[in-house]
Amino acid sequence: MGQEVTIAVDGMGGDQAPDMVIGGLDIARRRHDDVRFLIFGDQDRIAPLMRGRSELAAIAEIRHTDQAVRADDKPSQALRQRRDSSMGLAVAAVKSGEASGIVSAGNSGALMAMSKLALRTIPGIGRPAMCATMPTSRGRSVVLDLGANVDCDERNLVQFAMMGAAFARIILGIARPTVGLLNVGEEEIKGHEALRLAAGMLRAADMPFEFVGFIEGNDITAGTTDVVVTDGFTGNVALKVAEGTSRLYTEFLRHAFQNGILAKLGYLLARGAMAGLRDRVDPRLYNGAVFLGLNGVSVKSHGGMDAVGFAAAVNVAVDLVADNLKGKIIEDYQRFGDGGLDEVSATAL
Amino acid sequence: MGQEVTIAVDGMGGDQAPDMVIGGLDIARRRHDDVRFLIFGDQDRIAPLMRGRSELAAIAEIRHTDQAVRADDKPSQALRQRRDSSMGLAVAAVKSGEASGIVSAGNSGALMAMSKLALRTIPGIGRPAMCATMPTSRGRSVVLDLGANVDCDERNLVQFAMMGAAFARIILGIARPTVGLLNVGEEEIKGHEALRLAAGMLRAADMPFEFVGFIEGNDITAGTTDVVVTDGFTGNVALKVAEGTSRLYTEFLRHAFQNGILAKLGYLLARGAMAGLRDRVDPRLYNGAVFLGLNGVSVKSHGGMDAVGFAAAVNVAVDLVADNLKGKIIEDYQRFGDGGLDEVSATAL
Repeated sequence: MGQEVTIAVDGMGGDQAPDMVIGGLDIARRRHDDVRFLIFGDQDRIAPLMRGRSELAAIAEIRHTDQAVRADDKPSQALRQRRDSSMGLAVAAVKSGEASGIVSAGNSGALMAMSKLALRTIPGIGRPAMCATMPTSRGRSVVLDLGANVDCDERNLVQFAMMGAAFARIILGIARPTVGLLNVGEEEIKGHEALRLAAGMLRAADMPFEFVGFIEGNDITAGTTDVVVTDGFTGNVALKVAEGTSRLYTEFLRHAFQNGILAKLGYLLARGAMAGLRDRVDPRLYNGAVFLGLNGVSVKSHGGMDAVGFAAAVNVAVDLVADNLKGKIIEDYQRFGDGGLDEVSATAL
Repeated sequence: MGQEVTIAVDGMGGDQAPDMVIGGLDIARRRHDDVRFLIFGDQDRIAPLMRGRSELAAIAEIRHTDQAVRADDKPSQALRQRRDSSMGLAVAAVKSGEASGIVSAGNSGALMAMSKLALRTIPGIGRPAMCATMPTSRGRSVVLDLGANVDCDERNLVQFAMMGAAFARIILGIARPTVGLLNVGEEEIKGHEALRLAAGMLRAADMPFEFVGFIEGNDITAGTTDVVVTDGFTGNVALKVAEGTSRLYTEFLRHAFQNGILAKLGYLLARGAMAGLRDRVDPRLYNGAVFLGLNGVSVKSHGGMDAVGFAAAVNVAVDLVADNLKGKIIEDYQRFGDGGLDEVSATAL
């Protein structure tokens, strides 16, 4: 890693906070040499959790606040009234430069709003996008936007492709990721206008990723491309349909194993293998959605995660900071700009 | 059923046609008392398949043509050049009134184009929608539009709700189905403008279904509502993500059962129960996508289906004709029109 990475942590966000936050940090710190945590939250609740965790305590600093963003706070409300909350102060620490990234398992809308306002988008980037990985037949794929922007134009989509590819280079460790634009396949339908324009721009560009063209919904889990680009409405639905289908299948599988004495016995024998299956679709492995495109790394952990899941989100934040996500995006954007983003876009509009 | 139902059948559409077509008809006819089939296709290939199927032969008539729509025909090309194909003639038989519905496992785009041109939309209905059922935790839900319309306005969505509910009353046998509008849940995002307008119109209307408001992607498989309404872009992606995730899970499960001797033995014991699981997610059960809103029932069977799957699509067509789908849609549309569709829409626009 080389240089020290400081991550600001919302100690009070998430269903099982602060316990799972501290537990998660204690797991995550083992993977990184030079990491420091600034933990914002209720000192009286967090300090006792540090006992018996001397190695974590040595690299962590607790900053007290008795305020927290509530799950039902609206984003606008959080911006106005929760500036001194654990989330608000953690975001502010990234803005001031004390930390390079923030991780929170709290209210998504509030985190997105606070991160956007405080960190602002990287110059040239129109809108940040929410990005995460999903399980595929070949491993994992990066999917964005997962819900930050309902309506996207071709420039947004092109920038999502750039940012998603930079994310994939760091998180998946793929030097030249493949990128697909999510579309529909019926002959009659040629997709949204923005999709066609974005495809033209991406085909013409010389970028550190390979644009393979349009893909369809089933290509996400097939792992056809390393990066899947779509608007925030479609991406949000796709993510939740995948989660729901996985849950349905698990439920059907559980019923099947309870269906008679032979099935129950079979389950006992195959239990170890079934644990392996569970691990492959374990949502904790895919935890950590990132708001890409900001001046600072902002990672959302799912609110219902345990310590292992929270640790995964922390790992994402540390890796993105250590491998300079922002620098990669700026570099690609400048390269793409030179490669004709403005030109192509000007003719397209 | 009461009165005779005549279904026109594209004998040559689908990967395993005409064998699986004839096999499927022979399965489907057992479920219906008073059904007749007009089968269009190559007499020399179809007639031999009728041998040993005297009960099917008694209610089926073969109409010869040596033309067929090809899988790679573009819709416009099919309209111009394949009028005398098995698909084209089958659609024409519905237009002429000889048959009340058509089933084809051939080229989707061609079937949609031919059906729209020949059958036209029911007066008042802006656009037909593609509709099918998907497996849920509670049974099955009706989802539309699955790909006929990329961009939908609020009137289209309201009409999809009406048509989907009529479909659910017939196919799911639910007297007063619940209907949800697919949206995204992030706080920052309030969904598309068309969605908000459609929700307002549906809330105000007095209809033979219960509008429950917005739902999210995971609600589809949870079975939160009997009918899920969305635009054709999102619906197509959702359907394919669900199929892909189901395939991924099956693949992971297969790997898990091959993982060591205990797992293999466990599989042998649980095999019967696993077959039960397979049945619950068997895509053949959900086969038969309908173009709703036309003057005649047009059903698309998946191209890769076998006879059992094709029979399911035929059953859908027969049930929709026998239970007078078109009459139900017209009745609901008139009722909704009185209930304020034009008014609400006029103020909304």
